[in-house]
Amino acid sequence: MSTRKKQPTPPALRAAFQGEPGAFSHQAAMDLLGPAVVVLPCTRFEDLFVALRDSQVDAAVVPIENTLHGSVHENYDHLLHYDFRIVAETNVRIVHNLIAAPGVRFKDLKRVFSHPVAINQCLDFFAANPQIQREPFYDTAGSVKMVVHENLRDAAAIASAVSADIYGAKILKRSIEDDRQNITRFFLLRRPDQPALALDEHAKKGWKTSLVFTVRNQPGSLFRALSAFALRDLSVIRIESRPLRGRPWEYLFYLDLIGSTAEERVQRALAHLQELADMLRVLGCYRA
Amino acid sequence: MSTRKKQPTPPALRAAFQGEPGAFSHQAAMDLLGPAVVVLPCTRFEDLFVALRDSQVDAAVVPIENTLHGSVHENYDHLLHYDFRIVAETNVRIVHNLIAAPGVRFKDLKRVFSHPVAINQCLDFFAANPQIQREPFYDTAGSVKMVVHENLRDAAAIASAVSADIYGAKILKRSIEDDRQNITRFFLLRRPDQPALALDEHAKKGWKTSLVFTVRNQPGSLFRALSAFALRDLSVIRIESRPLRGRPWEYLFYLDLIGSTAEERVQRALAHLQELADMLRVLGCYRA
Repeated sequence: MSTRKKQPTPPALRAAFQGEPGAFSHQAAMDLLGPAVVVLPCTRFEDLFVALRDSQVDAAVVPIENTLHGSVHENYDHLLHYDFRIVAETNVRIVHNLIAAPGVRFKDLKRVFSHPVAINQCLDFFAANPQIQREPFYDTAGSVKMVVHENLRDAAAIASAVSADIYGAKILKRSIEDDRQNITRFFLLRRPDQPALALDEHAKKGWKTSLVFTVRNQPGSLFRALSAFALRDLSVIRIESRPLRGRPWEYLFYLDLIGSTAEERVQRALAHLQELADMLRVLGCYRA
Repeated sequence: MSTRKKQPTPPALRAAFQGEPGAFSHQAAMDLLGPAVVVLPCTRFEDLFVALRDSQVDAAVVPIENTLHGSVHENYDHLLHYDFRIVAETNVRIVHNLIAAPGVRFKDLKRVFSHPVAINQCLDFFAANPQIQREPFYDTAGSVKMVVHENLRDAAAIASAVSADIYGAKILKRSIEDDRQNITRFFLLRRPDQPALALDEHAKKGWKTSLVFTVRNQPGSLFRALSAFALRDLSVIRIESRPLRGRPWEYLFYLDLIGSTAEERVQRALAHLQELADMLRVLGCYRA
């Protein structure tokens, strides 16, 4: 704690995320809650749901889908299991940077450490630099921590720009990923008993509502379910089916629509869907 | 080549897959084409599409969705880009085994190598065995190859049972994964000019048809598209939307339905959808 006098500011929020400090989820937490956010890094996704349930944190940040890899189904399962609300979303472009201990030069590099998924997203870089060995490591941000702490002089890591800041490392090359369209969408979650956050105060963006429902396995059942929105001119902007575990031929549907649950036609559509669905839950309503 | 006389058998098919020999994709190739399949392991997914296009192989085996991790969007993109047909599907349960060089005993183990994703799917095993260090490695099957080739006496790998066979290793513990509902669905792909394979000759299973289409971003456009199937009592068993790259607010839909393109009502449904969709492609029709 600093002893200098400070302007009175609201206390920083505590947010749980999965990964090491400096992970892309950490960046999402800063995008959502500001750079002063106090973070609780967790090992497993489930840990952060437990941390929010047990009030160890004020919010949780979870990746929900990625443009290359699809939906993070595990987190959809946790959303079903825990009774939280989606209160905001953000998109983080996955930018891989080549990061080394201070003073290390690009021409010194013989090895690059990172998570294999990140390494495999930078194959053009390795093809162009055959003198550099790829070294698999546990975690992207963790590989930055390691090259700095061990002060490796012939090695770098591949990770986010935030992780270079956190561990006092230097970015040797920015954006070495093969595909610039690698974007992860994150949700900010809160418990239903928590007060609303003053997020996006200046946002003029519209609202999105996310929900999950099940319908019987009958021809046309999804068609009838979508009629609840189509008949009211509501735009469904995302839909995904998922088999129900242990119940072959039954499906969950995750759906995002444009609109707020404060609007009457959205309320009417949800009431209509409730008649048609075996189960319906609104996961949240938030700024797009 | 053996010099012994053999029964005349059709020549084994050559199939490309991504990963090292012994990867779960290799097991899928054996499930789909029999244990005699000749495999071409590839580094990237795109490499196997190129190998099939260039007739280096007779077929390609690609993972398309996983129960925990969702759809492999990259492969859906390749399916759109390359003009292949889905001719079969198979589901492989991801069973992680603890595998070591011959003679190594469980109590000797100090380290376990595997791909971080596999290691993170066996956290209960590591919690129960805190004396064992986790060591990230490039590839599950590749970690078996390494512990055998280097004849490590204090180390094991986590990988498929097939990889133990391939590298002459021993399974010390079977099925150490946390979640037994980890299943990957694979497609078998062929070029449109290739003759039909005599697959599933004894199968009494029904047919599935997979397709992809785009519709304008208008409220109700997906609802209208699904009417093509609902009005003909055809069951849509899977649907997933995906934003079109570079075209915000436009979506691709991937859809699986029960039925064969040899059936008249499926043909009529496709003709109807063709009227409503900006783009429609049938990706394949195969045994469920």
